[in-house]
Amino acid sequence: MHNNLFFGIDVGNTKLAFGIARGDEREFLEKKVVPTEPHLGPEQAVNKILNQGRVMLAGKQSCLGGIGIAFGGFVDVNRAVALASPNFPGLKNIPLVEIVRELAPGVSVRMDNDANVAGVGESLYGKGKDHHHIIYLTISTGIGGAVLFGGKPLAGSQGLAAEFGHMIVKPRGPRCTCGSRGCLEAIASGTSIARMARNVAAKSDSLITKLAGRREAITAAHVFMAARRGDVVAQNIIDEVAYYLGIGLANIISGWDPDIVVLGGGVMNSSDLLLPPAISVVKEHLEVRDAKVPPIEASDIHDDVALWGAVALARGNIG
Amino acid sequence: MHNNLFFGIDVGNTKLAFGIARGDEREFLEKKVVPTEPHLGPEQAVNKILNQGRVMLAGKQSCLGGIGIAFGGFVDVNRAVALASPNFPGLKNIPLVEIVRELAPGVSVRMDNDANVAGVGESLYGKGKDHHHIIYLTISTGIGGAVLFGGKPLAGSQGLAAEFGHMIVKPRGPRCTCGSRGCLEAIASGTSIARMARNVAAKSDSLITKLAGRREAITAAHVFMAARRGDVVAQNIIDEVAYYLGIGLANIISGWDPDIVVLGGGVMNSSDLLLPPAISVVKEHLEVRDAKVPPIEASDIHDDVALWGAVALARGNIG
Repeated sequence: MHNNLFFGIDVGNTKLAFGIARGDEREFLEKKVVPTEPHLGPEQAVNKILNQGRVMLAGKQSCLGGIGIAFGGFVDVNRAVALASPNFPGLKNIPLVEIVRELAPGVSVRMDNDANVAGVGESLYGKGKDHHHIIYLTISTGIGGAVLFGGKPLAGSQGLAAEFGHMIVKPRGPRCTCGSRGCLEAIASGTSIARMARNVAAKSDSLITKLAGRREAITAAHVFMAARRGDVVAQNIIDEVAYYLGIGLANIISGWDPDIVVLGGGVMNSSDLLLPPAISVVKEHLEVRDAKVPPIEASDIHDDVALWGAVALARGNIG
Repeated sequence: MHNNLFFGIDVGNTKLAFGIARGDEREFLEKKVVPTEPHLGPEQAVNKILNQGRVMLAGKQSCLGGIGIAFGGFVDVNRAVALASPNFPGLKNIPLVEIVRELAPGVSVRMDNDANVAGVGESLYGKGKDHHHIIYLTISTGIGGAVLFGGKPLAGSQGLAAEFGHMIVKPRGPRCTCGSRGCLEAIASGTSIARMARNVAAKSDSLITKLAGRREAITAAHVFMAARRGDVVAQNIIDEVAYYLGIGLANIISGWDPDIVVLGGGVMNSSDLLLPPAISVVKEHLEVRDAKVPPIEASDIHDDVALWGAVALARGNIG
């Protein structure tokens, strides 16, 4: 059968993931993950995407029905150009759709930002699947968001809606990679959690540093690990992060009044530590005025959700 | 001609406004405004609505095509019950649609919160009329909001979307009338501007108090008046209000990416003092990441916009 293979590419700041799936199947025929290495510049990342694509698609071009790209950053309104990624210095205005098109001339290539794409994955295959109006938040290196009505992501006027990572939750707060200040991403992203821990570690002797080996090696995962072992410094960082995540979630709910809020991304591997206190903050602010707080849940498919969303994009399942 | 008169009612915390308009006409046949006097309790306000309605509709029932109500507070998802109004103590769960129905049995009565209704008025008759995706913000006694796509307000899951007045812009900030803390309304509403001025007036000898006569009589209008005459205390209050209004607007734009933001309500009579510094704050936070800031403009029809919206509701012009 022709045109029944679909190729998904997830361009993240940490890893590049590739998957081929057949027809409507929910398992990958082939999947591959390589490191992005943003410090080596955008050109090498583009080359990795093309090389990996050539290898995986060799001999399969005639069966290819579409290619979908989830891009971890700002995407232009026509979904053709990767504008920028705050965590990928030097990456600006790359016509990624046009570039990827050379992997399979004549085959449709579609792109959207990874949060929108993951939101679609979540609403097709995840906790959002029985709901109409979904907010999806992805918390990993950065923080992205998507607003879906009936499975379709809201683009906004310039294609920049649902940038919840850059909601200002702490006015005059820490500088964000986007250049602004006090953004949710500057406090609650994996990168920011790690930065806060490194700052504290310079001053005190915490279990976090012991687990990481040295201060420079601290990641968000070490903070959560230390908190699980009762480390107070780690617990304080998590309290701070949960508080501002709660403020952000409360504001999202006041603005959108969604059926459900689903959170994905690597940091949600520790959702059991982060979500309950964040939900308390939401309730503290919203229940005083009798507003019902919708379910706020961690995705259970978040590892591959953006890649599956990219496959959905390739399949034409997205508006 | 039958059924070509439409009756609009705007139930605000300060005033109750009533208007009758014929067919598609843009002028009122008859308009009346009376004070709400919320301190006298909800029952007297409901009686005023019924009495005024009876007087204005006397002999006109047979020509009445519909009644529309703009309610200044939270409205239930079926748009039939006025749930509560933070600035109207004691008002809870009033079946206002059912009550108003007795003015003209058999005639359709529709209600929505005043910000949604005013947003529709703005998109039919105001600055939003050439745009698809509009955010409307009304700043008066309280702060309300509406999100419109093609002239239709987004309701949300419980009918509580676009509650931008209760966006937390200053975490751990001042207590809001809704019970929460740090809401935009607790800083930038007319009531909050007056409260800030009264607090400052207790400590210093400012032109604001002189203009008001005595401290207890200070309103937001006195603050703007004093600022126009160069009063530094008043200017500082406006700077603070504009800063947090700017934070709120930046967050609205990051979340929704609208075509235009229009601001109405009594406080916008001083938009020349408040909007330019607020827009600077928006640009400071958004332009660093190359996000285009959409037009942010004061409504030029804001005095009657909710009443016209109520007429549009009566006419069935709203989804």
